[in-house]
Parts: sequence; C-alpha cells; structure tokens
Amino acid sequence: MASLAAQTSAPGAPRVIVAGATGFAGALAAQLLWRHPDFELTAVTGRSELGRPLHELYPRYRVGLEIQELEPGLMDGLDAAVVAYPHAAAAPTVGELRDRSIRVVDLSADFRLRSLASYEQWYGEHPRPKLMDEAVYGLTELHREQIATAGIVANPGCYPTASLLALAPLARAGLIADVVIDAKQGISGAGRVFDHTTHLSMAGENIVPYKVAAHRHTPEIEEQLIALDPAHRELRVQFQAHLVPLDEGELASCYVTTTRPVDAAELADMYARAYAEEPFVELLDGPPGVLEVRETNYCRVFVAADPHTGKVIAFGAIDNLWKGTSSQAVQNLNLMFGYPETRGLA
Amino acid sequence: MASLAAQTSAPGAPRVIVAGATGFAGALAAQLLWRHPDFELTAVTGRSELGRPLHELYPRYRVGLEIQELEPGLMDGLDAAVVAYPHAAAAPTVGELRDRSIRVVDLSADFRLRSLASYEQWYGEHPRPKLMDEAVYGLTELHREQIATAGIVANPGCYPTASLLALAPLARAGLIADVVIDAKQGISGAGRVFDHTTHLSMAGENIVPYKVAAHRHTPEIEEQLIALDPAHRELRVQFQAHLVPLDEGELASCYVTTTRPVDAAELADMYARAYAEEPFVELLDGPPGVLEVRETNYCRVFVAADPHTGKVIAFGAIDNLWKGTSSQAVQNLNLMFGYPETRGLA
Amino acid sequence: MASLAAQTSAPGAPRVIVAGATGFAGALAAQLLWRHPDFELTAVTGRSELGRPLHELYPRYRVGLEIQELEPGLMDGLDAAVVAYPHAAAAPTVGELRDRSIRVVDLSADFRLRSLASYEQWYGEHPRPKLMDEAVYGLTELHREQIATAGIVANPGCYPTASLLALAPLARAGLIADVVIDAKQGISGAGRVFDHTTHLSMAGENIVPYKVAAHRHTPEIEEQLIALDPAHRELRVQFQAHLVPLDEGELASCYVTTTRPVDAAELADMYARAYAEEPFVELLDGPPGVLEVRETNYCRVFVAADPHTGKVIAFGAIDNLWKGTSSQAVQNLNLMFGYPETRGLA
Amino acid sequence: MASLAAQTSAPGAPRVIVAGATGFAGALAAQLLWRHPDFELTAVTGRSELGRPLHELYPRYRVGLEIQELEPGLMDGLDAAVVAYPHAAAAPTVGELRDRSIRVVDLSADFRLRSLASYEQWYGEHPRPKLMDEAVYGLTELHREQIATAGIVANPGCYPTASLLALAPLARAGLIADVVIDAKQGISGAGRVFDHTTHLSMAGENIVPYKVAAHRHTPEIEEQLIALDPAHRELRVQFQAHLVPLDEGELASCYVTTTRPVDAAELADMYARAYAEEPFVELLDGPPGVLEVRETNYCRVFVAADPHTGKVIAFGAIDNLWKGTSSQAVQNLNLMFGYPETRGLA
Repeated sequence: MASLAAQTSAPGAPRVIVAGATGFAGALAAQLLWRHPDFELTAVTGRSELGRPLHELYPRYRVGLEIQELEPGLMDGLDAAVVAYPHAAAAPTVGELRDRSIRVVDLSADFRLRSLASYEQWYGEHPRPKLMDEAVYGLTELHREQIATAGIVANPGCYPTASLLALAPLARAGLIADVVIDAKQGISGAGRVFDHTTHLSMAGENIVPYKVAAHRHTPEIEEQLIALDPAHRELRVQFQAHLVPLDEGELASCYVTTTRPVDAAELADMYARAYAEEPFVELLDGPPGVLEVRETNYCRVFVAADPHTGKVIAFGAIDNLWKGTSSQAVQNLNLMFGYPETRGLA
Repeated sequence: MASLAAQTSAPGAPRVIVAGATGFAGALAAQLLWRHPDFELTAVTGRSELGRPLHELYPRYRVGLEIQELEPGLMDGLDAAVVAYPHAAAAPTVGELRDRSIRVVDLSADFRLRSLASYEQWYGEHPRPKLMDEAVYGLTELHREQIATAGIVANPGCYPTASLLALAPLARAGLIADVVIDAKQGISGAGRVFDHTTHLSMAGENIVPYKVAAHRHTPEIEEQLIALDPAHRELRVQFQAHLVPLDEGELASCYVTTTRPVDAAELADMYARAYAEEPFVELLDGPPGVLEVRETNYCRVFVAADPHTGKVIAFGAIDNLWKGTSSQAVQNLNLMFGYPETRGLA
Repeated sequence: MASLAAQTSAPGAPRVIVAGATGFAGALAAQLLWRHPDFELTAVTGRSELGRPLHELYPRYRVGLEIQELEPGLMDGLDAAVVAYPHAAAAPTVGELRDRSIRVVDLSADFRLRSLASYEQWYGEHPRPKLMDEAVYGLTELHREQIATAGIVANPGCYPTASLLALAPLARAGLIADVVIDAKQGISGAGRVFDHTTHLSMAGENIVPYKVAAHRHTPEIEEQLIALDPAHRELRVQFQAHLVPLDEGELASCYVTTTRPVDAAELADMYARAYAEEPFVELLDGPPGVLEVRETNYCRVFVAADPHTGKVIAFGAIDNLWKGTSSQAVQNLNLMFGYPETRGLA
Repeated sequence: MASLAAQTSAPGAPRVIVAGATGFAGALAAQLLWRHPDFELTAVTGRSELGRPLHELYPRYRVGLEIQELEPGLMDGLDAAVVAYPHAAAAPTVGELRDRSIRVVDLSADFRLRSLASYEQWYGEHPRPKLMDEAVYGLTELHREQIATAGIVANPGCYPTASLLALAPLARAGLIADVVIDAKQGISGAGRVFDHTTHLSMAGENIVPYKVAAHRHTPEIEEQLIALDPAHRELRVQFQAHLVPLDEGELASCYVTTTRPVDAAELADMYARAYAEEPFVELLDGPPGVLEVRETNYCRVFVAADPHTGKVIAFGAIDNLWKGTSSQAVQNLNLMFGYPETRGLA
C-alpha cells in the first residue's frame, strides 16, 4: 500500500532492530521507530510468523518490513536493538548483542532488578547474571544520566512506571512509611495472549484482580523506592493488579502512610519542583483519566492529602503500551543517542 | 406488547410501590417486584416523565405501569414502599409513608448512619432526624433479625455492601488495625446522569478516580466496622472509588493491616464459618470477576494473606445495581414480610 | 457453593442432557435447563475439560455438574438431548441418540437444510443424510406444530432466526422480490474461540465484516423464505455478517425490494396479524436496540416503508445466544414435551 | 503544563481559526491544526464554555488556547477558518467570513448539496442560498482540483465519505443500478450530546439503527453518485445508519445491483486504477476493520463480487471524526494552501 512507503530517516541515522516484534510491545516499538525521524529501523524479528509483513499482524501499524529470524547477519553494522522477549528468553539475546557492542533497550524483566537474589526468588535462575551490572534501570525520569551512556537499559514494567512516577517525590523526601498500590490496566496488558483473560465475552464487562499477593513487579518497585530513600530499607510494598475492560491504559492508585504529617501545600510544592522540567510528566490538580494519555508517552500525576485518615493518595496514569513500555523505550533510545527526549514522541 | 402481561402475584400479596422509579435503582426495583411471585407492584412514581410507561424509559425492563406523581391516594392500602430518591429528598417522603405505617426500604443515604453528627458533617442538615431511630441498616447479612421487624430499612450503598461483606469476618475478629479500600465500579453507578462521566466516548476506554479523599460512603463503612469491633473505635477507613468502562459491576479490593499476624488457614476457616449459611455470599478460593455476579444478588468474596507484607487482602464483587442496591432491597422486603430471602431472586 | 444447590425439577420430569456443554451455546443450554422447573438435567458432556465442574469454565452459570464423556450409559432412560457440536460432528451423535429414540434438539447446521445438494455445496459431505428427513426446522414461530412431534429439531442459526422473524410476514405475502440482509453480532457469536477475532484489544473498538459473499447461513434463509413463498423460488438472498464490540446481541437489518408497492398501513397490519399471538415476538413502532432483548428469548421486530426508495426495511433484534440459539432450544423442548412455550424462559 | 507548549508553525504560515471548537469535530480540527507544521491556529471559538482552555474540555487534546466568542477582531489578518457549527447555524458565519475573503472549510451540511430544492426538502430554508454556488464538495479524492481554489469547501458528512469512496469507481463506470448502504458508526458520531444515545449504560452492549428511512445524508450521496454517472439520474440510494458501541470508527457496507455482470478481476482492476495514486485510500484484498484506520485520515476499501447473487459488495472503513470530518478538513486546507495533502496527517 502507498501508506507503507519507505522510511525517511535522516542519512546516517543510527540503525536499530526490534527483536520480538510479533508481540504487542515489540510491534509498537517497531511502529514508533519506523516513523521516527532519527532512527533507521532495519529489521523486525520474531520466533513465529516468519516472512509475514508486520502490518498483516498489526494492521493499525504501517511498518513495511517482514518478520525475520534473528540471525547474526542482522547484527552487522547495527547500533541498537529493542529486545521484546519474555523474561529469561531475553537475557541470552541481550548477551549476543552486547558481545557485538550493540546497545540494547530490553523490555523484559531480566535486567530490572539490582539484586540477583531477588531475581532468583521471583523469576528463577538468571540466564546471564554477569550482564546485570551493565544494566541501568530505564525509568527515564529517575536515571536519565546513566541511561545516556548505558549498554543495557532495562526498560521498566508498566506498573512500576506509573507507580514510581506517582511515588518518587514522596520517597525522595523520606515520607513513605507504608504503601498500598492498587493498579488497574486494560486488556492489552495481557499481550497477544489468546485465552479467557482476553476474550471480549469474558474480559469485557468484567473487573478481575490477578496474581493476588504475588505480583512480580513488587520487588522492582521496592528496589527503586528504597534507592530513593535508603533510610527505609525495610519497606514492603503491597501491590495488586486488576484487569479492566479497555484496550490500552493504566492507573496506579497509591495509598501512602507517611512517616510524618504532610499537608496539601507541602505536597503541591514537592511535586511541582520534582516535575517542573519533565517533558512527559503532567502534574494535575484533579484526578487523571487514562484516556487522557492514550497513545502518548505522558504520565499524568495527581497527589492529595486525606485529612480524614492522614494518608496521602497519589495517582499515576499512563498508556501501558506507550510510556509503560514501547514509547519509553524510544525515549530512552533518544537519550542514548543524543537526541532530544521528545524526538519522535510529541 | 404481549410480554407486558399483568403480574401474577399471589392473591392477598403485600402491595408495594416504587417511589422514584425513573432512575436506574428505582427502575430495577420495579422490575424485580413486577416479576416477584409474592408482592403486588401497584404503582411506580416519579417527579418527571409523568404518564410515560416505564418500559419506554427502560426497554429492557418489562413493567406494565406508567409513571405517576406520588399522591396520597397511592398510599391507601399500601403495605410497603421502596423509596429511590436522592439523599435529603428521600427523608420527607419516608416520613409521609411512615405516618401511614407503611414499611419502607429507603435506597438513599438519609437513614444509613447512626450518628446525626456524622450525617451532618458529610451531607448537611438532616430533613427528619427523629426518624433516624426507626431505621435499621439494611445490609441483610449483618442485620437480618432487626430488618425483619423494621419500619425503615436503610438500604446500604453499593460500595459499603461489597466492602463490608469482604471485611466483616475480619472486623468481628477484631483484626482490622488499618484498611485501604480501593473500589472500582461500572458506569451504571453514576446513574441516569447525562454528562461527560457517562458519555461512551469519554467514559469508555477510560479509568477515572473520583471524589478523592472525600467519599461519602466512608462514614457508613466506618460505623459498621466499628459496630462489629467496638474495641477499635478509632478506625479510619481510606476509601477510594473509580469508574471503569462497563455497565454493571463493582469490585472492592480491601487491604488490611491486621492487629496480629493471620495466616491463610485461619482466614479460610474464619470466612467459611462466617458465610456457610448465607444464600447470597459465595466464598471463592481465587479472585472473583464482577461478570460472575452480573444481574444477580450474589456477592463473591475472596480473602488472602500476603506473606510478603503481612497484610490481608479481601475482595468483594457484586453487581452494584443488584446486590449493591435494588435486589438487596427485595432481599430485605422478603425478610420484612416473612418470605424466604431468596424469593424472586434466584 | 450454596448457590449450586441441587435442581428442583418436578418429580418425573423428562430427563435431558446437553452434549457439548463446553462451548457457549451448550453451556447456556445447560444453565437454562438446570433452572428449568420441568426438565431434569442429568448430565453435561464434552470432548475436553473432562471432570471439571461446568461452573469453573462458566462462572456466571451456576450448574452443579461435571463435564463427562458422552458414553452410552448416559443415554439410558434419557428423554431428550441438546446437541451442541460443530457441524458434521453433530450428525453421528444425533444418530446414536435417535437409535435409542431419544428426542434431539440439534444446534448445529447438520439438519437445518431440506436439500442435501445444498448442504453438500456449503458444508461438504453429510455424515448421516438419511436422518435429514426426520428433522424439522426449529424456528418455533414458523414450524410450531411439526416441532411438537419431531424426533430431531434442527435449531436455526442465530442469523436466520433474526432475519426470518423480520421477513416472514413479507415472504408469506409474496412480497419479497429481492432482499439484502446486513447483520451485526456481538463477539459471543464467535464462540469459545481464542484468537484475534475475540481478543478485546483487537475486537473491541472495531467493526469487522466477515465471510464476505460466502456465508453459510444464506441457504438456510433462502430455503425458509421460499417455503413461505414458493412462487418466488428464484430468490437469492444477499447476506452479510459483521462483528461489533459487545458480548451478546444481534441485529438483522433487512432491505426488501417488493414485488409491488406497499405502504406503512399495510405493513403495520400485516405484521400485527402475524405476531399478535406470539409470546416471544415483540412488534415495535420504532427501531429496536439489541440491549432490550439481552438475555431473553424475545425477538423485537420493526418494519418501515421508505417512501424515497419504495423499499421496505425490516429489523429483527435478538440475543444471539438466547433466542438465536439456546433459549430457542428450550422453547422447542417445551413444545416437544407439552409444556407452555414460555416455561422456564419468562 | 509543559506539554501545552506554543505552536512551532513556520514563520509566515497561514493563519486559521476553528469556529465551534467545543464540539467533537471542531476540537479535533483544532488539535490537528495546533500541531500542524504549516498553519498557525490563532483562535478557537465557541458559543459556550467561554474562557475555558480547550484542553479542559478535551484533556486528550493538548491545545493551549482558550475558547473565545467569534468577534470580528478575530477575523483580521485571517487566511482561513474551519467552521464546525450545526447546519443552518453555519451558513451566516460562513457568509461573514467570505465577506472578508477568508477561505472556509465548513463542516456542516449547509453547502454540501448542489440543489437548493433538495436542501430545503431535507433541512428547511437555507440561510444563505446565494453562497451555495461558491462551494465545492470537499471529498478530496473526487474534487481535488476545484478544492484547491475554492472559497468554500463543504466538507462531506462522514457517512458519504465512507460510502462514496467505496462506490465511486462503480459509479464512474456506470455500473450502479441500485444500491443499499448499511452504515455502522461509533458513539462519537452522536457528538458531544449527553442523552440515552451516548450513556455508556444504554449505548454500550447495544446496536441501534436510527433515522430509519429518513437519513439526511441520503441526498448528498445521491447527488455525488449521479454526478459521477449522469446516465443514471433516477438512482435512489437506500441508506441506513446504526450506532454500535465503540468511540471512533465507521463502516459503510454497500450492496450494489449492477447494470451488467461484473466479475472479481474487473473489479480489482477498476479499483486499483481508481486508487493507485491516492495517499489516503488503502485498497485491501480482504474485509477492513475500522480499528485499522483509527485516528488516521485513511479510508480502507474492499470490493467483492458475489457469484451467488450477482451483486457487488463494497466496504469503506474510516474514522468518522478523522477522514470522516476533521482530518479531511485539514487535507482540504493543505490543498487550498498549496501544501502536500499529507502534511500534518501522516
């Protein structure tokens, strides 16, 4: 189709592939890079659907490439890769890419945790533990400088992204004594999985909690909050996820018992200072709806003090596939290659 | 239409009206009573839409009555009334009905609180404070015996219904030191209100928190929990509501900091004993989806201990218009008139 | 669970099984028969999920039976069976049941067509062609008397049900010179199939035509229309199906070029006479919405003459799983066993 | 918010306003022009919500302008205006703008019809009939050359856009003897209207036909088809609209009785030639889903011959607010000011 015209990236643009482009996250990363003015998307790979044009699987995305196997030849002359494999499957491929000094944004959980023990507790044996030291946690707003020079950027999970942007100013101020995070997400969060959790007749008109008392995003959130507030190393995050009947969109509602009383004015000032210069964090003075950030890299944040209970409530609203996954990967790639963070995302 | 045939209630059945049948709650109450084998629905009233058949406003409901003004004549020979007015508007009508010794199930907030001070703090001046003493809180599972003989049954809000059924066994055991309730509800919870909160283009594909740090259902939940556990009178409930894009359905996710450690076995036993004989509480061993209770009077409850945090998580799933409002009203009417609780609801 | 209590069918009630209860249609048939006062559901069978309680697969349905293999022992003392298998798979099982004189309502396409040639053209070889003569087409409103005594009732497809109820009066009057049927259906029409046609992220917010110019329901509709109007044997029906993003619900919009001019008054009279006595056809004076018949056995019909084009437009709205499939099966079973048609369905 | 930064349109870019930006169509037009590299959006006006920032009404759109009254001062130095008023209300404003030689894209029906008699029959008296001669029908693909120099571009209705792009090649070939158009649209088609047609509890899970046998888009489609095929002036289009439960998206399913037999090969060739050079028409070899064109200016077209009936079926899928309304307005503005058609829309 005419609409699948060749890319028009600038000459000499960094060359990048998406490994694992058949899933939701990889496919969107491919679409964002395909239309990006300053990267050249040279290939999309997958372990199934070989030879099929990506737009056949994802007609909404107008990427003019066919799905290939990830062969060594594809890595020649490559500058960067987005790896969109499941956890444990990602690490070996990330290793191969790093052996060739190709810079990687990894969308899996394999390099998100700093603690190997914690990884093994939640995920099992790590395929390439030595690579963990090369990795930087890719929540752009928290680790901007390290990301710029990293070999591996471990893109955060979508839940940690929304939760941490809602909570970071409180953590940095040492205010979080206890926190409950209740997160709600659209069905795209389940990915290209075909079962009763995604069938419209079962998932539509439904609200379903899942992974009760056992969500793997918990240690990732804890590690980052403790890194911001090392004085409260004993923090245990209560995290609970729910599926709600929409496609893309995610809200983290965070209920914080504070270490000392905080009022609305102090909160407003704290958050305004934290996010004044952030291009993709929009601080609101009322509750955000996820539709407002649909198909954008924005995170909308709202924080309130509850005089009745003394608790602080902080909300983070994102598109789980965009800021929660693939557009944040592009935000990080922009940083890694010296482009403005907003390039290709505005 | 043939399908709007006359009711076939038993001869001598109690005569009941629904006052305020143009809203979602009143209309459903009318539908449930219309098809109930043991009540005769003699009239439906409203303050607008006078003269229109109810099924024109609600084509799904097959009630063969026209909307009338609530005139004294309608109260002659009446045994009971369901009052579905907004708060403050309900109390005067409830008073008129009580002056004639007509038994009332009131769906508003006017008689839910035991404390007048608390009512005034959250709702303003009470129109008929003296009637408050006549009222029984209508969460059937908690106040069955008093409901059976009550003049006024104050039907609970939908959020308190789901929350209290999830939490009651813990409260009764004196285990709730602190609780966060994060509730999610379909758009029918907004009622027959036409604005941006209910427009499909704005409410669909959205998740929106509302009434942050100020939800009027909070004191109702607190009063009932404290009544179950008077030793913890200082309890402050953190309650937060969210609208999600479906029609009917509500989930309360309750995060409890306990007064002492509790394990899974103790929880299982506690809840099994609490609900063994309840016809409308279904205790699950995994998380409930609200679709499973759609258009029923059931509440599905699931409780889990989180070994990572030490907290207890309890879920209550209901249909906000059914068990959360109108079918619970019928459950209460059944009790008040000596019928099995399940009559007309199975 | 308490809510899965034993059935309370009358003593001596006919014994019935549902063969193929793991799919949407069979599961709903089981649910309707489970709560039916005058049938005893003795077993539900499947070719997968053996040993699982049906309510595990379908938590909305409260059927207290486990899925079994269909073994000969299950047929002992059996009065009737609902067979919910795919086409071609159904006929052999129907044959086995008929060998034991068990009366069958078959939900597949295997016995819907009168013409073997037509069956073979659209579906391939027929597994049990000799049984075709025993079968009666199960659109209750058209073949009530034959159904009452039939050995095999071939339950109509959902599209033919909505289309034929909208068109039958016109056909009977010899008025259909040409007809275009544009049908829209919720995702439940795809059944318990897990792929991109049912994934909420792909099917939600979408409208998709399918089986363009090749829908197998076409010959079924043609045969029945020609049976009502043998003078127009050459009729070719243009039928097109679309999936729209809801669960249950189906609308057939029928555009008829008439054999002679017809005006609104004649149409109104014609349809009123046709459907005056029908308990499950609701004739409207404005366009029906499918939500109005959700989870009911009703079909809502509206017909209009278009003075601009001279054509007649007729709409039929049903719930595709109810009147379109499983509740119509129960309506037919009621007839077959001498109960009022509405028993268990009102 | 940082994200509402000033526009960055090129210096000397044409200055444009959107009159009537509080509705869905005007708001989206404002958003598209706000981010367009080659137009400067100087004001957004409305008849209500004065003084409110547009992004308060439409949080998804990041337009940093407040809603003003349309005062003459706003027209000074203006090059163009998009007028998004209801029919009859638009014409006087269009007249005022034309008096100042400002070029207009009008989104209303006021200038779409060539025949005044036809306008009066469907809409009533025309407020400014003399202006009708200045207007060009704004379906870009049919009237590109005239649009480039027009003073008034009458932007098509969304239904005519999808229908005409599906049918134009057949009409141009003189092949349409008779046509039935069955169109389905998301709820955004009802606009910023708050009533039972847009309430999620009533519109969700529903399919509803509306304006049966009386849709005002009919004459617009007829005029354009006849203009393409003057030999069949007697053509009467059967057009029927339906609302289905999604936000944005529209499918026109067109059933054509042809003037002579046509086969698949001829159709394929005819459509390929018609649309080979069109940047925004995507010709498919299978049925399109509206999600594939969501929030784009694309129209996806698929055409098939039905050997069973001899009819031709043509589908056109668009986003009703984009190609159906506001992005097509921008496509036309691009043409009018000498920019590539795709500018700001790719």
